[in-house]
Amino acid sequence: MRSIVLLSGGLDSATVLARAHEQGEECFALTVNYGQRHAAEIDSARRIASSYNVTEHRIVQVDYGQFGGSALTDNALDVPTGGETGIPITYVPARNTVMLSIALGWAEVIDAGKIYIGVNAVDYSGYPDCRPAFIAAFNDLARVATKVGVEGSAISIDAPLIDSSKADIIALGNKLGVDFALTVSCYQADPTGRACGKCDACRLRRDGFAAAGLDDPTMYFSE
Amino acid sequence: MRSIVLLSGGLDSATVLARAHEQGEECFALTVNYGQRHAAEIDSARRIASSYNVTEHRIVQVDYGQFGGSALTDNALDVPTGGETGIPITYVPARNTVMLSIALGWAEVIDAGKIYIGVNAVDYSGYPDCRPAFIAAFNDLARVATKVGVEGSAISIDAPLIDSSKADIIALGNKLGVDFALTVSCYQADPTGRACGKCDACRLRRDGFAAAGLDDPTMYFSE
Repeated sequence: MRSIVLLSGGLDSATVLARAHEQGEECFALTVNYGQRHAAEIDSARRIASSYNVTEHRIVQVDYGQFGGSALTDNALDVPTGGETGIPITYVPARNTVMLSIALGWAEVIDAGKIYIGVNAVDYSGYPDCRPAFIAAFNDLARVATKVGVEGSAISIDAPLIDSSKADIIALGNKLGVDFALTVSCYQADPTGRACGKCDACRLRRDGFAAAGLDDPTMYFSE
Repeated sequence: MRSIVLLSGGLDSATVLARAHEQGEECFALTVNYGQRHAAEIDSARRIASSYNVTEHRIVQVDYGQFGGSALTDNALDVPTGGETGIPITYVPARNTVMLSIALGWAEVIDAGKIYIGVNAVDYSGYPDCRPAFIAAFNDLARVATKVGVEGSAISIDAPLIDSSKADIIALGNKLGVDFALTVSCYQADPTGRACGKCDACRLRRDGFAAAGLDDPTMYFSE
């Protein structure tokens, strides 16, 4: 079966790709460059896709950062470091909706039956488009939005990590042989992929490796 | 109220904008350049947005045509002229899903309560993402996908022309004073916006003007 994996360059989506690859699926990787600050993610996604020999890796530019409204795309907003409550300023409006929509179009063209997205329980607490209700609603949409859906088959959205903690994901990735040194989580990574060590994404990653009892290969630029 | 109008440059979305403008809404226009053959549409959208004094007109590039699979984005495929049955080759996979997703993100940033899309009954017969079931599913998605949705308000998707024929739309646009000479429908318009007169979109437009009993200002390059 052909599957599309949304590949951000972070460790969650790398683990999802490793899992689909291990299950023997023919994997296609899709990275959406939406104007995020941390462009090192894109390079990281390239290296990860290449290491799993995906059939194709497409990088789609969406000139979406022009809208602002998120610390990930607007340099005038600071990336938070304090583990704020509520929906954080790093939320990019409708990001996962846009990425899944683009994946849906590609899935129709290449006849893929599944789209994987690496959203998980940690993000769930903050971002609306990382919740099970969002994935369910997108699955409903996919059934009516597409030519293949109308003709009777379907493209399903699968979020296999949705109930996992960061430590669970790291443990799974480790078991599957993911090279975490290739992955970038930091919201403000430098161009070589080194991390700040201070933002929420860095904190979650570091805590995850600690809770999983595994060595963290992350390189920091503050070191 | 702030509203976003998806503005393609065609006569349907121009009529939708005219209607929202007449209703006194503060209109923002969004045009998605997804690599369509008929780039004259984009220029047309600019002129229409300008004629209605929209607060902002954003043109978002999505490098989406790279996937192919549609005669509108793939020059290797011919634009059909015969009024084919079934879902036509001009269908762009998940196009309306992608455009509404981008609009949804912008709506969150500018605090717009409504997104207008000019899909209608004529397209309905062919394209899956022009049907009432698609609009309903996207409305359900919008409620769970966004920060504002989670926080209790909502962004609604409105397709006011969905039950209209092309002749109905032309009659409505005429009543509202739409300058149809600014609009481009042809799937393979030349760079100045002149139409081929042969493709399905030209045929529907010409028949619509005839059925509405109105003069058709379309310029053809075959003349």
